[in-house]
Amino acid sequence: MVEDEAPVAEPSVPDRRATQAILDSLTKPLGSLGRLEELALWSAGVQGQAPPQEFGAVHLVVFAGDHGIASRGTSAYPSEVTAQMVANLGAGGAAASVLADAHGVHVQVVDVSVDSDYAELAVPATVFANRIRRGSGCIDVEDAMSLAQAQEAWDLGAGIADDLIDSGADLLIPGDMGIGNTTPAAALVARLTNEPANVVCGRGTGISDANWMTKVTVVRNALWRTRELSSSPVPLLAALGGPDIAAMSGFLSQGARRRTPAILDGVISCVAGMLVERASPGAAQWWVAGHRSPEPAQRLALDELSLEPILDMHMRLGEGTGALLVLPVVQSAIALTNRMATFESAGVSRA
Amino acid sequence: MVEDEAPVAEPSVPDRRATQAILDSLTKPLGSLGRLEELALWSAGVQGQAPPQEFGAVHLVVFAGDHGIASRGTSAYPSEVTAQMVANLGAGGAAASVLADAHGVHVQVVDVSVDSDYAELAVPATVFANRIRRGSGCIDVEDAMSLAQAQEAWDLGAGIADDLIDSGADLLIPGDMGIGNTTPAAALVARLTNEPANVVCGRGTGISDANWMTKVTVVRNALWRTRELSSSPVPLLAALGGPDIAAMSGFLSQGARRRTPAILDGVISCVAGMLVERASPGAAQWWVAGHRSPEPAQRLALDELSLEPILDMHMRLGEGTGALLVLPVVQSAIALTNRMATFESAGVSRA
Repeated sequence: MVEDEAPVAEPSVPDRRATQAILDSLTKPLGSLGRLEELALWSAGVQGQAPPQEFGAVHLVVFAGDHGIASRGTSAYPSEVTAQMVANLGAGGAAASVLADAHGVHVQVVDVSVDSDYAELAVPATVFANRIRRGSGCIDVEDAMSLAQAQEAWDLGAGIADDLIDSGADLLIPGDMGIGNTTPAAALVARLTNEPANVVCGRGTGISDANWMTKVTVVRNALWRTRELSSSPVPLLAALGGPDIAAMSGFLSQGARRRTPAILDGVISCVAGMLVERASPGAAQWWVAGHRSPEPAQRLALDELSLEPILDMHMRLGEGTGALLVLPVVQSAIALTNRMATFESAGVSRA
Repeated sequence: MVEDEAPVAEPSVPDRRATQAILDSLTKPLGSLGRLEELALWSAGVQGQAPPQEFGAVHLVVFAGDHGIASRGTSAYPSEVTAQMVANLGAGGAAASVLADAHGVHVQVVDVSVDSDYAELAVPATVFANRIRRGSGCIDVEDAMSLAQAQEAWDLGAGIADDLIDSGADLLIPGDMGIGNTTPAAALVARLTNEPANVVCGRGTGISDANWMTKVTVVRNALWRTRELSSSPVPLLAALGGPDIAAMSGFLSQGARRRTPAILDGVISCVAGMLVERASPGAAQWWVAGHRSPEPAQRLALDELSLEPILDMHMRLGEGTGALLVLPVVQSAIALTNRMATFESAGVSRA
């Protein structure tokens, strides 16, 4: 299904042009709003209107899943934290919850592949109603999941995008929650860029030298194990990814196909974006990169997507936090485009 | 008066420490909020409380003034634009007006040295009630103003800070408006850092090669003319600056002395900050740098102040816009510190 999708549409060029004309009429030196002008043009293109309007229904979807390789010691935290953080996100106590609330963003948490029965944790049943499986395989010795599960996870994410867009969402933010998830992300980027394991692996949430060496070994073994594999997204996700990353990829893909923009966050969403761009060239035009993550795999993915992050705050906690932090900057760019006086209206002399 | 001021106080170290302990208790990997944690610690220090609270009374003061050297052809715009933009700021149509409104910031525009009688422009009399003089001298051949005027301008800015702080302001943003003002700013930085004219001069609002060469020549001549001058702030401002920059310097100085923080904007406020730091070492601890300006003089000033900007959006229009854009990032850092769950309260396992 993924392989033969129609190409995504182009954002509106006429609306970008008309917005450029508006920007050039405003009381400021030409081009002096810098990257804010790029954001205004992007907003015009993806909204298909000039001037663009502030985004009114922004939705963060956090895709949660556990990863088999966390048992190898690739993460600073035990896997049980994934389920605990799903509960924390549900209760509004996570970093993404606070930022979403501060910036008027709706939050949905989806348990795609958490390895927990939530015994004593308060998690609404709707969160795990669509779980694909408990955790993923240890990708150094086995596939993360079956091909059918990868397709099912992709379709789950696409369906979530459909539901949100049907109910009026005009900007999507993909978030991730999953102990160990930077290891499959690094493996996927290594496979797609042919970079070696030690180049793609970062420190994740802050691991020791010993854990980093374990991570590199896991990725190297996973790449060797799957050396015959093609670079098609769903088989790659099945072999090296995880249900959560597959669901996020389906979510971003369907968003772009339905002309709905997204702000990418850290390494997980940029890797998902890279897979989607491979399947549907042009999808990246529907996205902006929120922030620069310290993970080297994110830099490689962003280079492939030709996206330059807006913020570089050295944040490394995922959940969509970097994208959420950038939302006021995007909205400010749109407000300026709509509300500044023109040289004519204010009677200001031109250069 | 400026020369023998007492040193400014240190922001509170105990409140920074207590806030670090709070940050380390929150449900996120240690240090993973990156520079947001620095902003939370800075807020705690300058507020003298842990955790810090979101800033509630943020005031932008735009210091407007014309510059004699604009007549030499150092700017892309004619001097009449300064007065027109003062009117535009008053009417809410400038970029800074829109951003201030979007982020709940109060705006005050002060005509320190605009060279206009506002003939057909609607400008409230309160804006120019304290004007020091009309425009400044051509700094390549004469002083920008007298020593007495420089001191008067400094005191005007300090008085504005006093009034705002007395009425409850808890965060100050200095803004600038003045055609030609990057030339005196470059001259001041060249004098303080011993960098040559061609290194400190940038493109301002976007000047041509020919105008840039004129600008370099003006700065070189101004530096030669004042080669015997000491580096005391008020005499320097009188010789090479302008009443608007002197007023902004007094404003920042008095803010720091009265333990009131500020977000610096582009090259003008960073140069003013550099002068204040020379007069009152430690003042820079009361400031964060909002954004990276393309002006080389700003980079030199920030290096002296040991401040690293939060945003780099290639903005070059002044008015306080870069600082305003960063306000939601600062407020987000504080919101996270207050509202995230702790490992204990959420029952999340530690690393």
